[in-house]
Amino acid sequence: MSAAQNNQWFQEIFSSEGSSFGLKIKGKLAEVQTPYQHIEIYGTETFGNLMVIDGCVMLTTRDNFLYHEMMSHVPLFSHANPQKVVIIGGGDCGTLQECLRHRSVTEVWQIDIDEQVTRLSEKYFPELCTSNNDPRAHISFDDGIKWMKAAKPESFDIIIVDSTDPVGPAEGLFKQDFFENCFKVLKKGGIFIQQSESPLYHMQLIKNMHETLRAVGFSNTHTAPFPQPVYPTGWWSATLAGKGVDLQDFREKDAQQKTFKTRYYNAGIHRASFALPEFMRELG
Amino acid sequence: MSAAQNNQWFQEIFSSEGSSFGLKIKGKLAEVQTPYQHIEIYGTETFGNLMVIDGCVMLTTRDNFLYHEMMSHVPLFSHANPQKVVIIGGGDCGTLQECLRHRSVTEVWQIDIDEQVTRLSEKYFPELCTSNNDPRAHISFDDGIKWMKAAKPESFDIIIVDSTDPVGPAEGLFKQDFFENCFKVLKKGGIFIQQSESPLYHMQLIKNMHETLRAVGFSNTHTAPFPQPVYPTGWWSATLAGKGVDLQDFREKDAQQKTFKTRYYNAGIHRASFALPEFMRELG
Repeated sequence: MSAAQNNQWFQEIFSSEGSSFGLKIKGKLAEVQTPYQHIEIYGTETFGNLMVIDGCVMLTTRDNFLYHEMMSHVPLFSHANPQKVVIIGGGDCGTLQECLRHRSVTEVWQIDIDEQVTRLSEKYFPELCTSNNDPRAHISFDDGIKWMKAAKPESFDIIIVDSTDPVGPAEGLFKQDFFENCFKVLKKGGIFIQQSESPLYHMQLIKNMHETLRAVGFSNTHTAPFPQPVYPTGWWSATLAGKGVDLQDFREKDAQQKTFKTRYYNAGIHRASFALPEFMRELG
Repeated sequence: MSAAQNNQWFQEIFSSEGSSFGLKIKGKLAEVQTPYQHIEIYGTETFGNLMVIDGCVMLTTRDNFLYHEMMSHVPLFSHANPQKVVIIGGGDCGTLQECLRHRSVTEVWQIDIDEQVTRLSEKYFPELCTSNNDPRAHISFDDGIKWMKAAKPESFDIIIVDSTDPVGPAEGLFKQDFFENCFKVLKKGGIFIQQSESPLYHMQLIKNMHETLRAVGFSNTHTAPFPQPVYPTGWWSATLAGKGVDLQDFREKDAQQKTFKTRYYNAGIHRASFALPEFMRELG
């Protein structure tokens, strides 16, 4: 992927898929080269602020709610009693905030390799960072792959892998070694979820994830598609895996009676995210 | 909206929303100025052929199945016994072809104002035009608004409005006069469906459609969102209205046992399309 800008537009080009997406910008607000990646923040005309990492759109003010709500509330309402949650990646703190809306949750660990993602989010996406000082929030800047390898077995209820694309620092997050460690770290009945790219562009990646997650011991797996306008194709997905638990059997009544506001997620959307398009049904 | 091309890319710019979408092209295959609009056909690197009308992406070979399957199978499986269908617009013949897969259907009328859309589709999207010679297909090039005004009351089971955006020739298709005539032309138990733009960009349009459809007599209305990568935001919708019929009550068993292949639509996706995102629930 590569990016091109002129005075008025930020544009992301998905070279391998021959498509591009652009947002009209008012100006560049920040640019930081960290030891891990190149981060830019733009102000856009109509999508609020925009974070770009290594030329790829990460999030905008306007539409990040779709991704963050699906990455958090689907796994948490799929778990019988989610208490301990770890987010690998997620440095913008949006997923953390959504997880902390659940009253059952006692601890959320956020392990992002790059502190600058969080510092820039605090400044340019403060509405995502309102829970950073919650006593249940544990924000750590560390290598998620190493962290998971070192974590205590059967110590977490939920693992959320909220990463960038499977190139660069996030590549190892799509590999069998990492999945094995995730399986080990989850308690019985635990739920794993990982962003899994576009159903239209990345079916091979999604298939490989299912196979590898089952190979390391997860009893069942499911890919939930959802809209995400600023990502390639505008159609994104998250892949779930259960450790000895049926993913279809979510706490529907609790989701219907949820004690917090959302903009996309609700019990009906949760149920609907288990319907697979015909061309994805081979995932089982 | 406006379009810009260079040697390698076709780009559509959604000025009012400050976003753009592009496809890498191999070359321009055709360009026609008709009495109604400007039509271009491109060959793309990864999306097959691309039809553009007045600078707006209409369809590509790769992803049109999403739109065409939702615009046809949702209304047809929502009807108890769909026999007579009329498509307003739909000149590419993709919706026509999907409707004719239903064995109960005895007649499908396709009323597009611009013959050139169909002629270009026959040449550049032949896979959408395989049913054009079906004896049940009645392809007419006429003004859909006038056609509907002149049509016999209570003569059709299904009306599908497969139009361009609500500017230019299609503007009148989003107005109360047209909806009144559609209501009149449908039999009792009939179903109306119209493409209704992006849930993220066009909620005001969608709300207005619901209000107007109910004002002219439809007993209930629903907007079904679905992915459509080449349209603005990659997230599109169709709005349904029932004439004295509950839209939720579709022929689920028949959809499960459908006698033809699809790539997106199935009974689960149909059911899922009735789940409204939280921010759309005000539509009721």
